[in-house]
Amino acid sequence: MGDVDKQDFIKTLFDGDAIARLREARPRVHCITNLAANNFTANVLLALGAIPSLTVSPEEVPDFTSRSDALLINLGTLNAERKDAINTAVEVANETRKPWVLDPAFAEASTTRLEFAAELLDMAPHCIRANAIEIASLCRAVEAEASAEALALATHSCVAATGEADTVTDGVSTFTVSGGDPVMARVTAVGCVTSAVVAAFLAIEQDALKASLLGLALVASAGEAAAKASSGPGSFVPAFLDAIYAIDDKGLKRQARIS
Amino acid sequence: MGDVDKQDFIKTLFDGDAIARLREARPRVHCITNLAANNFTANVLLALGAIPSLTVSPEEVPDFTSRSDALLINLGTLNAERKDAINTAVEVANETRKPWVLDPAFAEASTTRLEFAAELLDMAPHCIRANAIEIASLCRAVEAEASAEALALATHSCVAATGEADTVTDGVSTFTVSGGDPVMARVTAVGCVTSAVVAAFLAIEQDALKASLLGLALVASAGEAAAKASSGPGSFVPAFLDAIYAIDDKGLKRQARIS
Amino acid sequence: MGDVDKQDFIKTLFDGDAIARLREARPRVHCITNLAANNFTANVLLALGAIPSLTVSPEEVPDFTSRSDALLINLGTLNAERKDAINTAVEVANETRKPWVLDPAFAEASTTRLEFAAELLDMAPHCIRANAIEIASLCRAVEAEASAEALALATHSCVAATGEADTVTDGVSTFTVSGGDPVMARVTAVGCVTSAVVAAFLAIEQDALKASLLGLALVASAGEAAAKASSGPGSFVPAFLDAIYAIDDKGLKRQARIS
Repeated sequence: MGDVDKQDFIKTLFDGDAIARLREARPRVHCITNLAANNFTANVLLALGAIPSLTVSPEEVPDFTSRSDALLINLGTLNAERKDAINTAVEVANETRKPWVLDPAFAEASTTRLEFAAELLDMAPHCIRANAIEIASLCRAVEAEASAEALALATHSCVAATGEADTVTDGVSTFTVSGGDPVMARVTAVGCVTSAVVAAFLAIEQDALKASLLGLALVASAGEAAAKASSGPGSFVPAFLDAIYAIDDKGLKRQARIS
Repeated sequence: MGDVDKQDFIKTLFDGDAIARLREARPRVHCITNLAANNFTANVLLALGAIPSLTVSPEEVPDFTSRSDALLINLGTLNAERKDAINTAVEVANETRKPWVLDPAFAEASTTRLEFAAELLDMAPHCIRANAIEIASLCRAVEAEASAEALALATHSCVAATGEADTVTDGVSTFTVSGGDPVMARVTAVGCVTSAVVAAFLAIEQDALKASLLGLALVASAGEAAAKASSGPGSFVPAFLDAIYAIDDKGLKRQARIS
Repeated sequence: MGDVDKQDFIKTLFDGDAIARLREARPRVHCITNLAANNFTANVLLALGAIPSLTVSPEEVPDFTSRSDALLINLGTLNAERKDAINTAVEVANETRKPWVLDPAFAEASTTRLEFAAELLDMAPHCIRANAIEIASLCRAVEAEASAEALALATHSCVAATGEADTVTDGVSTFTVSGGDPVMARVTAVGCVTSAVVAAFLAIEQDALKASLLGLALVASAGEAAAKASSGPGSFVPAFLDAIYAIDDKGLKRQARIS
């Protein structure tokens, strides 16, 4: 995309009233996520207007995945049962054409986790949401240059790299999402819930680049509002959920800083 | 019960100073509940004055159940270990005459979960706390007409059906509990913690109809107060716990709307 | 230690600017903790300035433990997988000379849990953080007199006994930490997060007596501030995290009541 096309793309991002559509559709998002993130993820999705489910049992995952509208796979607190459940859930999602997001939480910290993440990259996630260290690890695992763009090209996925500023790329076009607040790095699972928000947008927006930009812009905007309304990482959490609940398409369009 | 008897029953509900007795007795409630609800459930029970425990290990469940005063079985995030633990816990509870509550969370979403829920109905729960969709699924599973009353008659349990207004029935007498706030549907595990509150009241009140009415009235009342004191689903949670901690029998009698 | 030496020891406790050093070092604390405590523990450690990880998979625990700076072992919601992970984590911690804290949560409630706790005492925890009932159970298990001092002598560990007032002892010198607020007993996992805070201080302070005193004083101080700033156990939690985030060495020195 050239610069003019990018500006057009960003403008149209908010034309579709994505938040209103999401709240109308009430998409089901099945989340296999970690032990620190379960409650927070469910509350973020409910505040946004989606319907979360969280089971990690290999026996139940096929039923929950096939009735869902999107799937989140987060590798935090991974174990044998979760690996089994994740493999099944991703197979069902791919068979039933449900979009899914991979969050390779702490993939750099454990050899077995990174190997498993690399296997999942072969199963065609629609989006990978990760921080810079996790993306560098995934790049090593797929023998790509260490960049979000290289990972996107190697995996044919949209890559949403979050940090002080966020990057969203399909390997060809790269966008920057600014905003948020440093306190968000002092609250557990903010990255994990960002991945869940992207999954919720994927349920109503097929274009992974658009869904990722909407998700990251919403989290940055709600995070910024919550940081202003709170006095530390503890009061940030309820304020963040309230901000997600309160935000609408107009507000997001006004506050989003995408370039 | 005739209408006059029902009015008498409702009047006597608050004569026993149930909350004061609960706080005096500090009953132990063992909870096998889901990954999104563990922390919130423990905090609700502590705020109310009960003592929660949460282990799901089949090895430890007999010790924890036999020293508890009531048991909560919630089917959320069910897996093989939890099934095993639940079977053991219910057997021990029945042998040692501890009251128990069944919360068939998301029973409609998975075939294996609904089958397991149906098996548990044969083990005589004192109360079933569920939403309308879950109750309809259970009714299908026991080949009863789709109503709380029919489920109560088929299972000889008290059924507490929560929704915009709540219904409590033993199949013969049916009560309505009003109150609460729509924001409660946007907070994860509110239904799950309601089941835990009913379990806590069962520990000090043998009549399952009374315990269920007290539990649902308390949650509706605290939820209404918390919704007024907060500005969205995030700030609702701390306000709800504060309201449960603050409420007493007089306050509950004044605020409860039971008919 | 004589009384004069104790006063000197207390004075020097705050000379090292431990909080500032911790925030500079950003130690990694691997936590194997219970299902009610995962999110709260991660948020407490992040608010303090440490970096938490939480995996309980026996496969991943060696990698996570060997890259961490301290380890927390909490026995809540123990099961077969957690036992396996704990054994491995403690072995790796001892081999790689990482300090570790044992929190024998609810050890009195289950025979198998108490037996496992007794096995862990043989593996030389740097600190045992527990309440009076748990300490009495451990003392029975190691056939010691029922006191924190006796347990410390029998195990060669520092014992941090929390309750209305806290006791920290190595069996020879015993200190009392006052402060906190009764509402803390009505919030789940406050003891568990206290153990995590002690583990974080052990990462930057080798003297287990000092690390325990710092951890307990910080929790008492933040708890007292949070209780004043809140109106019940629900609003206590965000206020407590904000207070931990805000406290510095000067503030802690001023507020700590150690004798």
